[in-house]
Order: sequence, then structure tokens, then C-alpha cells
Amino acid sequence: MRMKLCQIDFKPTGKSGKCRGDQSLLDCAHQSGVDIVSICGGHGRGNCCKVRVLKGAASEPTANELKVFSPQELEEGWRLACQTRPRDDLELFVPPGSMTTMQRLQVEGFEIAVAPDSPVHSYDIYLPAPSMSDLQADAERILEELKNQRVNCSSIDIEVLKNASPLLRAWDWKAKVFVRGNEVVAIGHQSSRQLGLAVDLGSTKIAAYLMDLGSGKTLAARGAMNPQFAYGDDIVSRLSFVLEKRGGGKLMQKLVIDELNRLLLELCSEVDTHPDEIVEAVMVGNTAMHHLLLKLPVGQLASAPYVPAVKGALDIKARDLGLNIAAGAYVHILPNIAGFVGADHVAMLLATKEIWQKESLALAIDIGTNSEVSLIDSAEIASVSCASGPAFEGAAVKNGMRAAAGAIERLRISGNAVDYLTIDKAKPIGICGSGILDAIAQLRLAGVVDKSGRMLNNHARVRDDKMQREFIISKGERNELPAITITQKDVRAIQLAKGALRSGIQALLNARDHSSEEIKKVIIAGAFGSYIDVSSAIITGMLPSLPLNRFEQVGNAAGMGAKLALVSGSKRAEAQSIASKVHYIELAAVPDYVKILVEAVGMDEY
Amino acid sequence: MRMKLCQIDFKPTGKSGKCRGDQSLLDCAHQSGVDIVSICGGHGRGNCCKVRVLKGAASEPTANELKVFSPQELEEGWRLACQTRPRDDLELFVPPGSMTTMQRLQVEGFEIAVAPDSPVHSYDIYLPAPSMSDLQADAERILEELKNQRVNCSSIDIEVLKNASPLLRAWDWKAKVFVRGNEVVAIGHQSSRQLGLAVDLGSTKIAAYLMDLGSGKTLAARGAMNPQFAYGDDIVSRLSFVLEKRGGGKLMQKLVIDELNRLLLELCSEVDTHPDEIVEAVMVGNTAMHHLLLKLPVGQLASAPYVPAVKGALDIKARDLGLNIAAGAYVHILPNIAGFVGADHVAMLLATKEIWQKESLALAIDIGTNSEVSLIDSAEIASVSCASGPAFEGAAVKNGMRAAAGAIERLRISGNAVDYLTIDKAKPIGICGSGILDAIAQLRLAGVVDKSGRMLNNHARVRDDKMQREFIISKGERNELPAITITQKDVRAIQLAKGALRSGIQALLNARDHSSEEIKKVIIAGAFGSYIDVSSAIITGMLPSLPLNRFEQVGNAAGMGAKLALVSGSKRAEAQSIASKVHYIELAAVPDYVKILVEAVGMDEY
Repeated sequence: MRMKLCQIDFKPTGKSGKCRGDQSLLDCAHQSGVDIVSICGGHGRGNCCKVRVLKGAASEPTANELKVFSPQELEEGWRLACQTRPRDDLELFVPPGSMTTMQRLQVEGFEIAVAPDSPVHSYDIYLPAPSMSDLQADAERILEELKNQRVNCSSIDIEVLKNASPLLRAWDWKAKVFVRGNEVVAIGHQSSRQLGLAVDLGSTKIAAYLMDLGSGKTLAARGAMNPQFAYGDDIVSRLSFVLEKRGGGKLMQKLVIDELNRLLLELCSEVDTHPDEIVEAVMVGNTAMHHLLLKLPVGQLASAPYVPAVKGALDIKARDLGLNIAAGAYVHILPNIAGFVGADHVAMLLATKEIWQKESLALAIDIGTNSEVSLIDSAEIASVSCASGPAFEGAAVKNGMRAAAGAIERLRISGNAVDYLTIDKAKPIGICGSGILDAIAQLRLAGVVDKSGRMLNNHARVRDDKMQREFIISKGERNELPAITITQKDVRAIQLAKGALRSGIQALLNARDHSSEEIKKVIIAGAFGSYIDVSSAIITGMLPSLPLNRFEQVGNAAGMGAKLALVSGSKRAEAQSIASKVHYIELAAVPDYVKILVEAVGMDEY
Repeated sequence: MRMKLCQIDFKPTGKSGKCRGDQSLLDCAHQSGVDIVSICGGHGRGNCCKVRVLKGAASEPTANELKVFSPQELEEGWRLACQTRPRDDLELFVPPGSMTTMQRLQVEGFEIAVAPDSPVHSYDIYLPAPSMSDLQADAERILEELKNQRVNCSSIDIEVLKNASPLLRAWDWKAKVFVRGNEVVAIGHQSSRQLGLAVDLGSTKIAAYLMDLGSGKTLAARGAMNPQFAYGDDIVSRLSFVLEKRGGGKLMQKLVIDELNRLLLELCSEVDTHPDEIVEAVMVGNTAMHHLLLKLPVGQLASAPYVPAVKGALDIKARDLGLNIAAGAYVHILPNIAGFVGADHVAMLLATKEIWQKESLALAIDIGTNSEVSLIDSAEIASVSCASGPAFEGAAVKNGMRAAAGAIERLRISGNAVDYLTIDKAKPIGICGSGILDAIAQLRLAGVVDKSGRMLNNHARVRDDKMQREFIISKGERNELPAITITQKDVRAIQLAKGALRSGIQALLNARDHSSEEIKKVIIAGAFGSYIDVSSAIITGMLPSLPLNRFEQVGNAAGMGAKLALVSGSKRAEAQSIASKVHYIELAAVPDYVKILVEAVGMDEY
């Protein structure tokens, strides 16, 4: 008897594959090029490879799955891909947290449908050629034709004017013009496309998307390291560089702009277009990245009371930034909220609005060196910024490293065994943020770390080094691979980092007189946040102890927000309205903040 | 007995001096630094040193003056300065045509009063400093204060934002902001002035004025040669240069912008200010200069049907031009009319509106290599452009030269004697436009040139050279000074130049069915036009034969128009309305134009 082949669609990746009835969905995913996290080699010991069956029938849940999922989650179709076999064609949803590739590219995110409504409109024009009896000037000829088409447009950008006259003649007076507000911002051949560029400018990574403004579709996406990184891996050291070095601000801006110009050329060549066809851009970033991008002063941002030079949304000519897109195009910059809550958080709130607006109380979190947290109820959005520090990025941890090939990103302790997964399945050379969080949660579960964060010598893998106590994850190979351990100091570093984040959450709840149980949805965005195991975050007390189905990991929501604002004018207005609704709370000014922080540093789930 | 000393005020120069009762007003003028043209050494043979007594009593008119002036003109107070002595303190009006300096600086012109109404407004602000309990961003803090002052302003230019934060802190949160439309375009110290720059960009000369936008007063004026001159002394050769040389357009623009930046530094140092205090600029120029300034394409301007890239007024950020004034300031460019009737003509019409709007029919003329002529009746302005060529500038004439030291600028023939005046009273080395026109008019009056333009051998100073016949003005000095002659060919060149201009005037009159006698006022603007002897222009048939009091020579009216548009928003609106009222007539398309031209080339007064 021939084995039945089932068609498996992996949403939202757009990928699909054939799966035999005796194969796991995890195997099928890997065959199909869908990088679902598999950590324990398919033994179902963790809850790493979660997928949700949207349509079709699958095998019965295994004992392991019954342990991992609540009855309601099972009801909703949640499964572990390594434990599940298809009985029929399946449509699967793969949440961002179950993907391995997201963290590295930082260009993936969930897509939400939006009716494209770009502030830039295109019009085909076909003009009569001038003659001795029709001496109208070229610019007025264009504007007159637009008026005939009932387009309200009164001016043409000077850089567009510089090209229009010869182009109109070369194209026999047929062209496409791009109008924004009442200004022509670009002129192109009849066949030219109407493209846009959306950028999420992170301190570490830049995500850039080439969009079709007409359809709202993403045509290409690229990620790159932020080259400012070489001048400081955190915001504070970059701001200090600018404040201390003559020309530092100019250099910081140039580094980013050059990289953006390089990225957009890559994006264009990927879809066989030219940067002149990009007639609009939207950028988001935290307040410091925002200021460095625009070469705004940062002195007042770097010292109390930490105020931005500007908060509101900005529309700036791309040429004023040195961005090589269409000559007259604008860059729209989403509004900031405060010195440490920037346009990227606004973008994230914009992109996740459909999720939080349905709930009576929601929490939206961007985790990073600085973490931004918003508590959203029907009336207001309250936001804080927490200095969670670089531990989540693998810094300040003995064997910590960034999320790169060879980093342990998932980890489980089973008795004396330690199972782990490394990025790109390379040999382990260190441990990245999500791996550290897993490790500490597992140590806490195994009773090796107590509720105060102290490491006990009660496990075969614990040893007392000259300097401190540590837990051995991997012994390494002599002259080949380093030993990888989690030290007492590492635990303290993570305690401080997660404590800062949790204290922000608690301060928000206190300020608005809510308990954590009232939170109906916790939205977690960004590279680290999207990739962590939420259970580990709960076990360590980093996130409130709530049912897992209240958490939603949304990938690069800031990038998604930038895309929405790019293709939709009404989404821009929404972003402005969100930003203006935010009440920023400065943690330093919260009276009992130290008490909140001390509690948050503890290692109890609460 | 001590001679009485009279106080003589020379309007509009602002200069004054003391004059003895036995001195001529001409001598007094020269003592007082007022450069009134004196051509015949005070013998009253010409009508060069005309002044008008506005107030006070003077000597009786001499026999010479009775010949020069009509009874009505004498009634109005017109006198020859060389023939007149004061009896009392006098207030004199010195018309531009009687001044020698105008042509060289090209920054003088008549001043008309206008209520200042700048599009840029300044506001003093005093802001509360940010604190932990007041975390408003700097930009929003400024905008909020403006709102409190009931100023409608929603944005701050990005370049202003780049400086505002440190400046506000250095100035203890007191500052002056400059608002244009709904945008802050500059920020300055509380004590900073509100200045503007007006520029008349001529093909040959640049005139720049530093203005106080609050009072509307001219603070300083400077003139300079247009450095593009080195790449072609006429418009056509500069356009060819741009079309033929790679990078030619960029070079042409850079030359002008560099010179403007140099000029504005000079202007600023003259009144002890800084270019940052210049918060607005207005520029005018002919259509070609306009396009070269803005680096607009010129291909379509250089070949039929000669259409501009843009006609309407433009507002361009000064930084987009490379002009070093306040960071966010705009340059307003007045509208063009057609390919060869530019913003400078609009500015001239704007500046002279008070003159022409009182008349039922007026003619406004800018004379140059290209001459622009407008016929204005109550309903409409009809304009033409005439290719008068470079003869008026001293080119294409054997001993012609530009108006520089040593050029004969005024000339009279009395019998066998020739009296002349040179610029800077230097020894004669050539003859400039106004001198050539005088010479030909005098030759015509003396019967040496007949009505067809033929030179007769009927004067002691006529000689037949190997090549052609010529009239000797000065024999020169061996090895020291060149001989200066007017040749038959020179007469022909002037015939063509003045014929082109006159044919334009006639074509306009024909098109609108008017006779020249109906013209109530002829306004003559620009360097050459302001300095010519109108009688000579009539004698040669260059200008219509009308009573002299119908002519008004207004100096650099284009510069004056630029100044008006700079200090007054309503004057800008007027300029736009004037430009839109103009009906441009292309001479090449006038059916009987050749017939008109042939008649205009003749040497009869008509």
C-alpha cells in the first residue's frame, strides 16, 4: 500500500510541502525549507516547535503534548510539530517564536492586511507638445494636465523640475507623475512602478523593506547590521561618542545613510528596479537612533531629564538626509514618545493595534538593551522605558554571544543531560540571550538556582571554580571548542536585566491600579522577545505568570508598523493618534520604584 | 561781505552740501560727492545735468536752459545744474539719468514706500526649562509657546531642529523664532535682527541688497560682475556652453552661488551682522539666468519654441541652492513670463506699477542684449522680447567698450568740436552704449548720417578709411591713447539694435491697435536704459517721438521689485498677478513683423 502524501501549507511563510503520514510535521517543515525550532531532536521534551493547525486533521496529541498544552490550547489546534503527524492536507500557522531564522534576519514579521492608501499618488499624463502657438512652460503644462484630471496639485519639486524637461521630450510627452499633498515629488516613465521603502533602524540591526505602494505588498526584504555598532554596542556609548568627538554626529549619520543606500540598491536589484522608482520612505527607530539618523542634537537626550529634540512625526526630503531615492521624495519619520521610547515603539503599537484594541487590558513589550513597555486600556496608553542592559544580547555573560552561528539558542535540562540547539546547527561556541534565559529557567526548575538567585552545589554539573560557582552546559573539546558554563555572576546579570523589565511592567500596573491577572494579552516584539521561550520568561519572573495563550510573539512589529505607515496615510494618522495618547511615566520619578525593583529581581514566578 | 552759504539737499541720494551763491549746483554736487553727469564742462551745451528744484529759490534760467526745456518743464522746476546758482536753501531731485554712478554699481534705483509685510514673522519666546515633571520635547515646547501666542505654526525645519536644542539651553530658554507659513525657518538670539536678501541677477551684473524685513529699509547694497561672464558675454553662448560641456550647468550655478555667498558676506560685514540673520531671500533674473541659477534644464530654452522649464513663482530652500543664509530659510523666485521675458521684467513691472497704473497706456522697457517691452493698458499687459543684440553694450562697435573707466558715455557735436565725458573722467579709451547712441544722434542732427543710415562725407571729421567711412571723435595720442571713431558699420549695428527694440514697440502698438502718441508714459529701466539721453534715443528713432516729460528713467527697477517682493507678501501676490495678466507675443509669429522691422531700422524720428 502506498503511503498517503498530505499537502502541508505553512502560514504565513508562503511555503508548503508534501508529508507522508508516518512523518512528523517538523520533518516535513525542514524538508520544505521552513526553519521550525527543534531542540530535543523530536522527543517532545520542550515546547519549542509549537504550531497551530488551522485546517485539516492530524494525529492524536501525545502524552508530551498533553503536558505542554492546556485543554483550551489543544482545542485551538496548538501542537508540537515534532509529535504530530498529518491525517489529511493541513494548513498550519507557525508563530514567529517557533522560527529560527527570524532573529538573524530581523526582516520577518507577521503580515496584516491593510487597504493601501499611500500619500503618494501616481497619474499618467500625455501632454501636447509646445509650439509657436502654444508656449506654455513645461511645469505649468504638467500642472494644467493634473488640473484637467481633477488633481489638486500646485507645485513641482525643484529637483523634479531639473529633470522633467528633457525627460518629457525623450518620452514624447508621455509620463507618469507622482503627487504627494499638492506637490509633484517624482516623474517617471509611463511604465515606472510606484515603490516605497520602509526601514526599522535598530541599534543593532537594520531591517529594510521594498514595498509596492499600489498593492501594499512587500516585494523584497533585507537585513543588515547597524554599522554604528563599531562605535559602541549600546546607545549610551554612541551618544557619548557623538558628544565627545568632533564630527561624531556627522559620522554616525553617514554610516547609517551609506548602509541604507547600499541596502536599497540590493533591494532594487532583487526586484529589477531602480532607486528612482522609490517615491516615498518611512523610517522608525528608537529616539537615539532617530536623532542620530537625522543628525539632531543628542546632548539633552543623554542627560536628565532626557528630552528629545523633537517628538512629532516629521516629513523630510530624502535629499536632506542624503538618501538616494527619487529626487523629490520625502522620508516620513514616525513620532517619538519620549527620550527612551521612540518611533519604533509607536510603530510596534501601530502594527499590533488589531491585537490590543480588542482587549480590555493589554501589555506591549519591546525587549532590548532598553526595553519599552506599554500598558493599554481603552482610555489610554501608559509607557515606560526600562534599562534592561545588554545581558539579553549575550553581553555581560561569561560565555554569552550575539545570536550568530554556533550560539546556543534553546536549552533543556533533563536530569544530568543538557539538550541544546545552536544557530545554524553549528558546534556550540557560546550562548545567546534566549539560550541564557532558557538555561536559568531550567536551573531554577531543577532547583540548582534558588528563589534569591543563588546557585546551589546540588547537581552533577555544578562546580566551584576558583572565582565562583558555575553550571557546565558543555565541556567543550580541547583546543577545538570552548567549555560553556552559566556562572553565578551570569545569573545575577540576568536577574538585573529581567528585573528591570519586570519592574517596569509592575510600575505601570501600579500606576494604573491593575493587577497582572487583568492583562488579557501580552504582545512581545523584537528579535530577542520574539524568540524567547515564554515559559522560561515566566519561570524566571521576567514576565507575569499568565496562561501561555495570552502571550503573542509578533516578530519585527516595528518593521511591520513602518510598512503600514508607508503604504497607508490613514495608518500614519493612527500612529500620530497613538503617540499622542501615550502617557509616558518616568520610572526614576515613581516614588516606590526601588521597592518594585527589589521584588522584580527575585527568581520567583509571580 | 561774506557770501551766503545755502544748504542743498540732493534727493534721493540722501547727500547734501553747502553752496555759495556764486557756485553752480553742479560744482556743489561734485563737492558733495553727488556724481551728476557734466559733459560740456559747464557750458550748458547739452542737456546732461538735469535736476529739478523741489523747494527753494534759484537763479533765473539762462538762454541755454530756455533752449533745452519747455515752458512747462521750467514751470516744474527743471534746470541744468551747470547753469543754476542757489538763492536760498534748495531741495533738488536728481533723476537717475543725470547720475554717472548708477551704471557701474547697478544697485541704485528709486525707492518707493511700501508697508513692510514680510512672509517671515519673528516672535520672542521664553520657555520653561524641561524637568522630570515636564518632559516635553524641545520642538513641541517651541510650538506650544507659539500656539500660546496665537501663532499658527505646526512644524520646524529639520536644519533648525539641528541647532535649536543646544541654543535654547545656552540662551537660558529665551530666543527669537522666525515663522514662515506654518513652519519655523530660523531660530536666533533674542537680540537677532530679521534680515532679508534681494538679488537682481543680471547677465552682466549682479545687484544684491541687504534689507531689514521689519522696517523695509535697505541696509546695504553691493554690485558685482556676474562671473558667468567669463563663459560667454551673452545668454546664448552661456546656454550653448551648458548644452555642450559636461558639468557646464553645475559650473554655471556654482559660479553664481559662490559669488552670491561672497556678496552676502560683504553685505553682512558692512552692517555688522551674520548670514544666519538673513531669514528670507528673493531673486529675479531673466529666464536664462533664472534657469542657470536653479540648474534647470536649458535645452528647451535654447531652441524653438523657446519654452521655460517653469514659469510660476518658486519657493526653494536656500540650502537646496547652496546659499549660505539661515538654515531653514527660503528663496522666493518671482515668476517668469516666457522664454525671453523673465522674472526681472516682472520685478520691473512690479516696482513701476505706481507709475504705469495711473496712465491709460504705458510702455515699460528693459533695454539690454535682449530687450523686454510691455505695453500696459487698463485691461492687459502685452509683452515682447526683442533681440537687440550686444551693440548697446559696446560690442560689435569698432571702438565700443563696456561702461568702465575711460569710456565715452556722453557726447555732443558743436560745429567741428566734439565734447565728451568719460567714465571716472579718465582719458578716453573707447565709447560705451550711451556714448554711441549720443554720437549717432549727433551725427544725424549734424546731417552727417542721413535717414537711411548712410554716413556722408560732409564734415571735417569724416574720413574715408581703406575699409569704410568713419567719423573721428578723438584722434588719440601716439602710443598713448587710441583714436576713437564711429564707423559706417557702427551706425549699421546701432540701426539693427535700436530697430529691433523699436520694432517690438511698434508690434505691440499694432497688436493692440494703438498709436505711439497714445502712450502716456514710457518707463525705461536697467543700466543702459537709465543712462541714455532720451533725446538721442528719439532722434535715432529708437524710442517714439514723445514729449520728454513722458519718459521716466527708473534705474535698477528689477532690483527694486526684488526688494519690494522681499519685504512684502502682498507685493509677491501682486507680482504673480502681474505675471498672470501678461499676454506674451512672439515676434516671430507676428505676420507683418518684417515690414515693421524694416521701418524701425530707419534713422528718422517718428
